[in-house]
Amino acid sequence: MAISTKISKAMEASSWIRKMFEEGAMLKKQKGEENVYDFTLGNPITEPPESFKRRLKVLAADDTPGSHAYMPNSGIPWVREKIAAYLTRQTGIAYTANQIVMTVGAAGGLNVILKALMDTGDEILTFAPFFVEYRVYADNFGGTLKPVPTTDAFLPDLDMLKAAITEKTKAMIINSPNNPTGVIYSEETIKALAETLHQASEEIGHPIYLISDEPYRKIVFENTKVPYPSVYYEDTILITSHSKDLSIPGERIGYIAIHPESTDAQALSTAANFTNRILGYVNAPALMQRVVAELQDEPADVAGYHKKRDLFYPALVSFGYEIVKPMGAFYLFPKAPGGDDVAFVNHLKKFDILAVPGSGFGTPGYFRLAYCVKDSAIERSLDGFKRAIESFS
Amino acid sequence: MAISTKISKAMEASSWIRKMFEEGAMLKKQKGEENVYDFTLGNPITEPPESFKRRLKVLAADDTPGSHAYMPNSGIPWVREKIAAYLTRQTGIAYTANQIVMTVGAAGGLNVILKALMDTGDEILTFAPFFVEYRVYADNFGGTLKPVPTTDAFLPDLDMLKAAITEKTKAMIINSPNNPTGVIYSEETIKALAETLHQASEEIGHPIYLISDEPYRKIVFENTKVPYPSVYYEDTILITSHSKDLSIPGERIGYIAIHPESTDAQALSTAANFTNRILGYVNAPALMQRVVAELQDEPADVAGYHKKRDLFYPALVSFGYEIVKPMGAFYLFPKAPGGDDVAFVNHLKKFDILAVPGSGFGTPGYFRLAYCVKDSAIERSLDGFKRAIESFS
Repeated sequence: MAISTKISKAMEASSWIRKMFEEGAMLKKQKGEENVYDFTLGNPITEPPESFKRRLKVLAADDTPGSHAYMPNSGIPWVREKIAAYLTRQTGIAYTANQIVMTVGAAGGLNVILKALMDTGDEILTFAPFFVEYRVYADNFGGTLKPVPTTDAFLPDLDMLKAAITEKTKAMIINSPNNPTGVIYSEETIKALAETLHQASEEIGHPIYLISDEPYRKIVFENTKVPYPSVYYEDTILITSHSKDLSIPGERIGYIAIHPESTDAQALSTAANFTNRILGYVNAPALMQRVVAELQDEPADVAGYHKKRDLFYPALVSFGYEIVKPMGAFYLFPKAPGGDDVAFVNHLKKFDILAVPGSGFGTPGYFRLAYCVKDSAIERSLDGFKRAIESFS
Repeated sequence: MAISTKISKAMEASSWIRKMFEEGAMLKKQKGEENVYDFTLGNPITEPPESFKRRLKVLAADDTPGSHAYMPNSGIPWVREKIAAYLTRQTGIAYTANQIVMTVGAAGGLNVILKALMDTGDEILTFAPFFVEYRVYADNFGGTLKPVPTTDAFLPDLDMLKAAITEKTKAMIINSPNNPTGVIYSEETIKALAETLHQASEEIGHPIYLISDEPYRKIVFENTKVPYPSVYYEDTILITSHSKDLSIPGERIGYIAIHPESTDAQALSTAANFTNRILGYVNAPALMQRVVAELQDEPADVAGYHKKRDLFYPALVSFGYEIVKPMGAFYLFPKAPGGDDVAFVNHLKKFDILAVPGSGFGTPGYFRLAYCVKDSAIERSLDGFKRAIESFS
């Protein structure tokens, strides 16, 4: 094999996921796209808001010289000022452009920050279930992701967290509203987490940065509050993207905001500017930086997702599925009837339903349904879910 | 220090470059932007062509659902088909969409391919002088860049190349038209290089991929031919971007084209799709993919750069600078009078001229001038260059 042995092995390890996707694609070919209920991908069917389309048209027609030129690796200065001002309005924290790094989505942001923080052998903590890419991102920089179990409600288990912290712990990634569970951490949860991290940082003699990955912040139901971790913990690095709230995941635009009072804040900001360059991102796409600068206050299509959740969640519960009620994002993470997630996900295919096993999120025994699909797809799938659980037991 | 020790050291090592930039910025503040001649950055002053602006306006107004959504990690299928068809017209090689991976610029493409190819300890060859980022890109994946010296004309020294190849050699990166020299490799040069790599691949028992980094392909003078290495060497991976030929470096759009007959071509294509994802690029920006798809035949502003070269090169030679005449790109790489590049670049500052020492390209004793600036800046700088060389000897 002429390609990298490491990559070859990594692809082999994830080949069961690819196999599932391929089987799903085959099913669609056989039955017609419309007759297969694909809940596998967090790719919003929702279109971007009118405000986005308007800004894009205006800025695409703007011929100001240098609009598509290089810029500082951290991004266009006035864009970063706008975002800093928005975050200051939201949090009361005195962010400036200097703490903002525009990135190629949140995925780019996570890689930029992990590269800036990590040395070989460092450990990154996260609560399971978790977005599976965290594992490969930590591995990109010679480190390890250590998942920490959560409670039955998918909330932080602080005793488990304490037990997982070692001198090699460099950072912890949290994700609220959460993919894949839809759970939101309350103010009390964040405070308790901050307290634990504070104490542990003192014990191990260096700060444990809290990386708050929050692309779903604006997708919340029943006015549930999503506290900003940075308000309760100074060593917080906020990372987000507009993939979900503006429904533009293909455009790859997001940002990092480093708490101005965090440990070595200036060094971290300089390092992120540097790693954005050396990882080959160079800078976030220029036009999209300018587009999102003015859309920070734009709400997400909450009503649309709320309706979808309310079509889906109570129906599944009434069929006998056990699910923690999601208060944000657009995912359900039900228990797999019988306990074997891969077996149940395979069973669902008989009813033309595609889902992802919890094993893909570090938590076997569950499965994920991404309901950022048409209302009609949810409605038409319900009978299949009913028959699936009845026929599986 | 809470940030990565490795990154901290890397930033320290490159701090002399930053110091020079900072001194340049200070000089501009003191004397006024217009009165400082900044030849340090490959950031084209040339604006994108009308065809780009037109396509951008049309596509920004296109409301087709899913225009900004996720796609396969390799990019939008019809865009990749267009690019494959263009390359087939250019080379006669039967590229298909399957061998094309849309990337976040050529920098993204290089990282995607190196991650797909490299294991820890692997070596990547390149000819010096070279684009300095190659070194950090190889290091990103636990490998080493091994620069190979060139002849006085900055052409491949094949004996030196043979001596540098070991069993750890995974690939060689070439860059013609070249940054920083402006040199173009002729058909004979490429053929001889291909022959050497063929033989060496057989000797070491595995293919040495030839990564042809060619963002300057369309910026050539006096109709100089730029042969496609893929025509002469099947294990070629072409990587390019539209940063230079369309003057849109801030938009981060480029692509990889894997030779369909290369060793493990299919595995390499699958691996590049995978590494584009796991490196956090996920995919190249969607809108820009669609914009450049139709602009593959668009010429670069060759006349503009040709004029700049002809304003600059003969004048510097007449003052006594020794320079290999550049036939493409937009750089001059003169010998540093006196031999100490850093000393001479510092001396140039007294004449309000900013340049980059050759040490930054793995070749001390030279300095780089990026002449993608206004004609008037070149003209007004000439007297300073004259006085600089006179006063230095």
